[in-house]
Amino acid sequence: MDWGLALDLLGTFFFAISGSLLAAKRGFDIVASLLLGSLTGLGGGVVRDLIIGRPPLAFDEPVHFIPPLLAAIVVYFMSSHVQRFWRTILTFDAVGLAVFCTTGAVTALEFAMNPAAALLLGVTTAVGGGLMRDVVANHDPQLFNPRDLYAAPAFLGAGLIVLVWHLGWYNAISLSVITAAVLVFRLLSLKFRWRVPGAHLDRAK
Amino acid sequence: MDWGLALDLLGTFFFAISGSLLAAKRGFDIVASLLLGSLTGLGGGVVRDLIIGRPPLAFDEPVHFIPPLLAAIVVYFMSSHVQRFWRTILTFDAVGLAVFCTTGAVTALEFAMNPAAALLLGVTTAVGGGLMRDVVANHDPQLFNPRDLYAAPAFLGAGLIVLVWHLGWYNAISLSVITAAVLVFRLLSLKFRWRVPGAHLDRAK
Amino acid sequence: MDWGLALDLLGTFFFAISGSLLAAKRGFDIVASLLLGSLTGLGGGVVRDLIIGRPPLAFDEPVHFIPPLLAAIVVYFMSSHVQRFWRTILTFDAVGLAVFCTTGAVTALEFAMNPAAALLLGVTTAVGGGLMRDVVANHDPQLFNPRDLYAAPAFLGAGLIVLVWHLGWYNAISLSVITAAVLVFRLLSLKFRWRVPGAHLDRAK
Repeated sequence: MDWGLALDLLGTFFFAISGSLLAAKRGFDIVASLLLGSLTGLGGGVVRDLIIGRPPLAFDEPVHFIPPLLAAIVVYFMSSHVQRFWRTILTFDAVGLAVFCTTGAVTALEFAMNPAAALLLGVTTAVGGGLMRDVVANHDPQLFNPRDLYAAPAFLGAGLIVLVWHLGWYNAISLSVITAAVLVFRLLSLKFRWRVPGAHLDRAK
Repeated sequence: MDWGLALDLLGTFFFAISGSLLAAKRGFDIVASLLLGSLTGLGGGVVRDLIIGRPPLAFDEPVHFIPPLLAAIVVYFMSSHVQRFWRTILTFDAVGLAVFCTTGAVTALEFAMNPAAALLLGVTTAVGGGLMRDVVANHDPQLFNPRDLYAAPAFLGAGLIVLVWHLGWYNAISLSVITAAVLVFRLLSLKFRWRVPGAHLDRAK
Repeated sequence: MDWGLALDLLGTFFFAISGSLLAAKRGFDIVASLLLGSLTGLGGGVVRDLIIGRPPLAFDEPVHFIPPLLAAIVVYFMSSHVQRFWRTILTFDAVGLAVFCTTGAVTALEFAMNPAAALLLGVTTAVGGGLMRDVVANHDPQLFNPRDLYAAPAFLGAGLIVLVWHLGWYNAISLSVITAAVLVFRLLSLKFRWRVPGAHLDRAK
C-alpha cells in the first residue's frame, strides 16, 4: 500500500470539499464547483511539481481527478445547512493542510531538493490550493487572516518531515504521527483562537 | 497551412481583445492594456505548456506576441462606445473560449497526455487566460458567474476532441466543426441565459 | 563577484520588504509577512525560470530565501510610522522593479531565448512578484494603476538589455547603468506623476 498516494488522495478530497463548499456557498453552478474543487485539491501539488520539475502528478495519473469529482457530487447532495458551511469548510481544509504539508515535503525530498526548498515546497503544497481557491473566488485569503494561524502548522509539519528525513527516521508511522500532530495543532488553534505575533512590532502598545 | 497555429493566433487575438477592452473599461493605460491582453490571450496556453512540460509556445515562437499587440492597438483606436463594452467583451471572449478548448486538448493529445488530462488541459487553456484576466483586474470571474454557463462549452469542446481523436476522426474539418459548435453553444447560452444546476442541491425549493 | 547574483538578492530583498510592509499595513501576522515577502521577492523569478525551463533558482540555491527572511525581520522591528508605509513601499518596490527587469532579461538571454521572449520575461520578472503580492492580498494591482506608470520602466529596462546584449555591449557596467536609469525613471515618474496614454483613445475629449 502506497501511504503517500493514499494520504495524497485523501488530502485532495478534503481540500476539494472545501472548494466545492465555497462554490455552493457563493451560489456557483456544478461545473464551477468541480473546477474550484479541483483547483483547491490539486493546485498546490501542481505548483510543487512544476517547481520540482517533474510532470504534475495530477495530470500524469488520472486517479487524482477522482477525489474532486467525488467532492463535487458529495457537496451537491448534502442537505442545505448553508449557515454551518464556513465551520465545515475550515475543518475539511485543516485535514488537507495537515496532509499536504507533510506529503509535499516528502515529495520534494524524494526529488533531492535541499532542506530549505523542501520546507517551502511542503508549505506551498499545503497553502497553495487554498490560496488559489480564495484568490479566484474573490474571497479574503484564509492564509493571511490575522485572527487565524494558518501557515504556522504547515511550516511545523514540513519542518518536522525534513528533520526526521535527515535523521533517517522517516517511515509510514512518523509520517502519520506528524500529519496527525499538524491536524490537532490546526484544530486547536481554531478552537482556542491561537495567534502568532503581527508582521509589525507595535511599540505604542 | 497549419490550422492549429492559425486558430491559436485567432483565439489569442480575440481573448487579447477581451483583456484590452477590460483595461479600457477600467481606465488602465496602454501598457497595462498590452499586458492584460497578453495575459488573457497567452496565459491559458502557457499554463497548459508548463503542465505538459514543453517550452511555452508563446515564448518559443515570437509570432504569438503579435495578436496581443494588434489587439491593444485595435482597442486603442476603437471609437468610444464604452457602455457597449461588456457585451462586446463577452462575444470576443466566446471565440477565444471555443478555439482554445479544442486546440488546447489537441496539443495535450499530441504530447501523449491521457484522455482525462487532455480534457482538463483543454478546459484550462480555454478558461485559464480569462480567469487570470479577471483575477488580476479584480473583476468577478466570469468563469464562476452562477447566471452564466461558461466552462460547460469548454468541457464539451475538449471532450469531443478527445473523443474524435481516439476514434481516429481528428482532422481540420472535425476540428473546425467542433470549434464552431462550441462557439454557437456559448453564444446561444448567452442569448437564452442557459444555466447548469447549482453546486448544491437545494431541497427546500 | 557575481554581479547578477548580488543584484538579484538585492532586488529580492527590496521586493520582499514591500511585501512584508503590505502585510504589516494589513495587520497580517509574521508568518504571513514572510510568505507575502517571499512571494513578492521570488515570485517573478520563479515564473521566469518555469517558462525558461530551468529549475527555479530560488529553490535551487537556498541563499535566495535569506532576503525575504531578513525583510520580515526588518519590517517586524521597524518603528511604527504606519501612515508613511505606502510611500516607503513604492520606493522599495521601485528598486526591485529596476533590478528585476534587467536581471530577468539577462537570464532569459543567457538561456538563448529570442529577443521578444527576453523582453517579456524581463518585464514578467519585474512585475510578476508585485502583481502576485497585490492579487493575493486583495490589493488593487499597482501594475494597472492608471494614475501611475509602472510597467513602462520595466519595458524600457528589459528592452535596453536586449539591445546592448545583441550589440555585444553587455557587461557589469552597462547592466548597472541601465538598472540605475530604470530606477531614476521610475522614481521621477512617481514624483512628477508621469503617465502613458490610456488603453482607449477618448475622442470625446
